[in-house]
Amino acid sequence: MNTQDTIVALATPNGIGAIAVIRISGPKAVFLADEVFRSVSGKKLINQKTHTIHLGHFINDDKEIDEILVSLFKNPNSYTGEDVVEFSCHGSPYIQQEIIKILLQKGCRMATAGEFTLRAFLNGKLDLSQAEAVADLIASENEAAHQVAIQQMRGGFSNEISRLRQELMNFASLIELELDFSEEDVEFANRDEFNALVDRILVVLKSLIDSFAVGNVIKNGIPVAIIGEPNVGKSTLLNALLNEEKAIVSDIAGTTRDAIEDELVINGITFRFIDTAGIRDTEDVVENIGIKKTFEKVDQAQVVVYLFDAHNSINKLNEIQLNIEKIKNKNPHKALLIAANKVDQLSEDDKNVIRSTILECHLLSAKSKEGVDKLTSSLTALINTGALRNNETIITNSRHYDALLKALKEIQKVKSGLEAGLSEDLMAIDIRQALYHFGEITGEITTDDLLGNIFANFCIGK
Amino acid sequence: MNTQDTIVALATPNGIGAIAVIRISGPKAVFLADEVFRSVSGKKLINQKTHTIHLGHFINDDKEIDEILVSLFKNPNSYTGEDVVEFSCHGSPYIQQEIIKILLQKGCRMATAGEFTLRAFLNGKLDLSQAEAVADLIASENEAAHQVAIQQMRGGFSNEISRLRQELMNFASLIELELDFSEEDVEFANRDEFNALVDRILVVLKSLIDSFAVGNVIKNGIPVAIIGEPNVGKSTLLNALLNEEKAIVSDIAGTTRDAIEDELVINGITFRFIDTAGIRDTEDVVENIGIKKTFEKVDQAQVVVYLFDAHNSINKLNEIQLNIEKIKNKNPHKALLIAANKVDQLSEDDKNVIRSTILECHLLSAKSKEGVDKLTSSLTALINTGALRNNETIITNSRHYDALLKALKEIQKVKSGLEAGLSEDLMAIDIRQALYHFGEITGEITTDDLLGNIFANFCIGK
Repeated sequence: MNTQDTIVALATPNGIGAIAVIRISGPKAVFLADEVFRSVSGKKLINQKTHTIHLGHFINDDKEIDEILVSLFKNPNSYTGEDVVEFSCHGSPYIQQEIIKILLQKGCRMATAGEFTLRAFLNGKLDLSQAEAVADLIASENEAAHQVAIQQMRGGFSNEISRLRQELMNFASLIELELDFSEEDVEFANRDEFNALVDRILVVLKSLIDSFAVGNVIKNGIPVAIIGEPNVGKSTLLNALLNEEKAIVSDIAGTTRDAIEDELVINGITFRFIDTAGIRDTEDVVENIGIKKTFEKVDQAQVVVYLFDAHNSINKLNEIQLNIEKIKNKNPHKALLIAANKVDQLSEDDKNVIRSTILECHLLSAKSKEGVDKLTSSLTALINTGALRNNETIITNSRHYDALLKALKEIQKVKSGLEAGLSEDLMAIDIRQALYHFGEITGEITTDDLLGNIFANFCIGK
Repeated sequence: MNTQDTIVALATPNGIGAIAVIRISGPKAVFLADEVFRSVSGKKLINQKTHTIHLGHFINDDKEIDEILVSLFKNPNSYTGEDVVEFSCHGSPYIQQEIIKILLQKGCRMATAGEFTLRAFLNGKLDLSQAEAVADLIASENEAAHQVAIQQMRGGFSNEISRLRQELMNFASLIELELDFSEEDVEFANRDEFNALVDRILVVLKSLIDSFAVGNVIKNGIPVAIIGEPNVGKSTLLNALLNEEKAIVSDIAGTTRDAIEDELVINGITFRFIDTAGIRDTEDVVENIGIKKTFEKVDQAQVVVYLFDAHNSINKLNEIQLNIEKIKNKNPHKALLIAANKVDQLSEDDKNVIRSTILECHLLSAKSKEGVDKLTSSLTALINTGALRNNETIITNSRHYDALLKALKEIQKVKSGLEAGLSEDLMAIDIRQALYHFGEITGEITTDDLLGNIFANFCIGK
C-alpha cells in the first residue's frame, strides 16, 4: 500500500449540482494545489493556516477552468492525517472532469475506493471498526442504521473491545511470565481476578453477539411477503402501507432520496416488500395459496402477511382458517400476520363472526385505509427494538460478528481451562487466539488482504 | 422577493457520495448554525473569523446526526453577500435529508431554484449576465461552452455593455437638457462626438449579434445527419466517429460524465447525430435517398454526410453524382460532406476513378477507420471557431441576443435621426429605448417577472 503519493477523487456525488468538491490528500497536496490555484489575495496556500478557505481561480497553462474555493487542511489536522486540499468548484461534470484530469497530469494518482479512509486508519485517525462505520454511515438509509453507524463511528464499541483486549493481554503476559518460572510454581496472575475478567468478557461478547440479530434487521431490513388469492386487494394494501411514508418524505423538497419503491421504514426499521412489482401489476391467477410462486415469496420472507377478502369469504371462513394453518405448519419460524380486507362492506355482525373464527385477525379496508395503521403497528411490534431504544451497542457488521463468535469460542476454552486447572502453556495459547480475534475487530491486527477487502466496499472519494 | 429570511438547500448533486454540502444563507445563518453545531473546540461560530473551517457535530435535541465540517463565510464576504454557512456532512441521502429537515424546523426556508445566485445579484456581487453565466457554466458540457460561460462570468461582456450604456446615458442627459432650453437653440451634446459614439455602439452591437451564430452552435451543438442507401455502413461510420471520443472520456476513472450517446465533441464543438438510434439499429429500406424519412433527417440537420458504398457503386458513380446534385439543390444552405465507404476493398485505380468523378469526396473505410480522421477534420472545418480561438466575446444567451437586436434597432433609429437632423425630443425617446435594452442585459433594469424567469432555470442550491 503506497501512501507516499498524493491521491485525488471527486468527493461529492456524480452529476450536476450547484457545487462539487474534489479532494486531494498526500505529502504533495499543498504544493500541487499551489501549482493550479491562483488565489484572489495573491498568497500561496503553503503560507496559509490550516482550516482556512480561499477564493481564487483554478488555472491550467494560464487558462481559467473555474472560480473556486479552496479549503486547506494541514497534516495532521485532516481527515486522512495528511495534507488535504479540497477544491469546491461549480457543479458541472465538465469542470469536475477537467480539474481531476489536470490534477492527474500534475502528478496526483486517482484514489481507489475508500483510500482516503484507509489512510486515515493507517495514520491512526480511526480504528478499523470506526473506518467501517464511515461506509455504513454513508450507506445508511434509515434512522436505526444511521444511529448504529454513528455510535460505532464514535468508537464506543471498539473502545470497549480494545479495553477488554488490553486487560486480557495483561493477564496473558503474567501467565506467560509464569511459564518462565514454571519450575518454581509461582502464580503472578491472580486466578480469581482472571476468572472475573473472563466472566465479564463472556457477558460482553454474548450481548454483542445477540445484538447482531437486531443489527442485521437494521442493516438489511425485513423482507415481507403479502400473499393471498387474486383480487383480495394485495396491491391496494401495499399502496396504503407505502403512501403514508411517501407523503412524509415528499414534504422536504430539494432532497429527493433515491426513490425506494416498496420499502417502508417504521421506527427506523426497513420493511422490504418482496416481488411487489408483481403484486402491484398483476394478480397471480392461483386457485389457492398453495401455488409455487406464492411459496417462493414466502420462502424469501421473514414476515408473511396473509390477506383475504372478508366480503367474499364470509361464508367460507373455515377454508380460510385451514389455509392459515397450512401456512403456519409449512413455515413454523416465520412471523405471520392475518388481515381481512374490504371490511367496509361488512355488517358489524359479520365482523364479529370473523373476529371469533379467525384469531388475531386484522380487520381493515385497504381502500379507505381503515385499520391499516393497526397492521403497521403489528409489523413493528414483531421487531424487538428495545436495544435500539436503550442506545445499547449493536453489531451490524458480519465481519465483527464472525470475529466475536471466534473470540467467544476461545474465551469459553479459557474459562473451561481455568475450571479444569489447565496448564499455563495451553491456556496461554487460547488467550492469544482470543486476543487475535479481538485485534481483528479494531484493526490492531490486520493483513493487507483484510484491509483490501474492507475498503473495496467504500465509494471512491471517501 | 423576500431576502430577509435564511434559506437552505443541498448544494451538491443528489445521491450517495463521500460528502455532501448543505448551504444556508441569510441574516440568521450563523445564529442558526450555532444552534445545531457543536464544535470540537467548544467555540461558537459567531466568534469565529470568516473563511474558516470547524470540525464538530451536527446535533438535534442532544442527538448526534453526523460528524461534520462547517465552513463559515461572513457578510459581505460570501457568494450571496450575506452570512453563509456550509455544512459538509457524510454523503448519505438520509443524513442530507435529516440535516435539511432540522434546519427547516429551526426556521430556515427551502431555497427556490437559483435563489442563492439571485441574492448575489440583488446584493451587487454579480450583474445579471454574470449570474446567468453561472447557470451556463454548470450546464456546460464541452470546452467551448465552458470557455464562453467562464468569460461571461468574468464580466467582460457586460462591462462593455455597461460602459457603452453609461456613455450613451451621458449624451441622453445632455440632449434632454437641450429640451429644457429648446427655446434658446443651444447644443450641449456635441453632435460629432455623439455620432462617433453611436457608430462605435453599432460596431459592438453588430459583432455581438453576429457572434450568436457561433454561440448557438456552442451551446446547442450542430445537428448532423448521416444519410445513404441501406448497407452502405452508416452505423459503422457513426461508431467509428464516436468510439474515438469515448476512449478518451473513459480514461478518467471516477468521473463518469453522463453518457451522451451519439454526440461527438471536437475542438469544443458538439456534433449531435440525428435519429442515430434509428441509424444504428435499423437500416431504412429505401430505394434511393429521395425517401421521406431521410429528408426529415436532412431537414433537422445543419450538416449532412452523404455516404455511399464505394465497392458496390464503382460502376454507377454517375448515379451517385446525380443523387448528390439532388441533395445540393434541395438544401442549398446546408453543409454537405460526401464520403465513399469500404475503399479498403478497392484497387488504387478504382479509387482514382472515384476521386475524379465525385469531387471533394472522402475515401474511407468505416470498418478499418482508414480516412475517418479526415472526415472528422472536415466536420470541424465547417465551423468557424475563429472567434472562439481569438477569445472574442460570444453571445450564447437568447435573452441577450434579443435585447441586443432591440438595442440595435433603436440605435439605428438614433443614427438615422442624427443624419436627418431629427428633433431632440424624438431622438431622446429612441435613446431611452436603447438604454432600456442595454440595461436589461446587465440587470440595471429588471422586473420581478424577468428575474423569476431567469432564476427558475437554475438548479436548487445555486
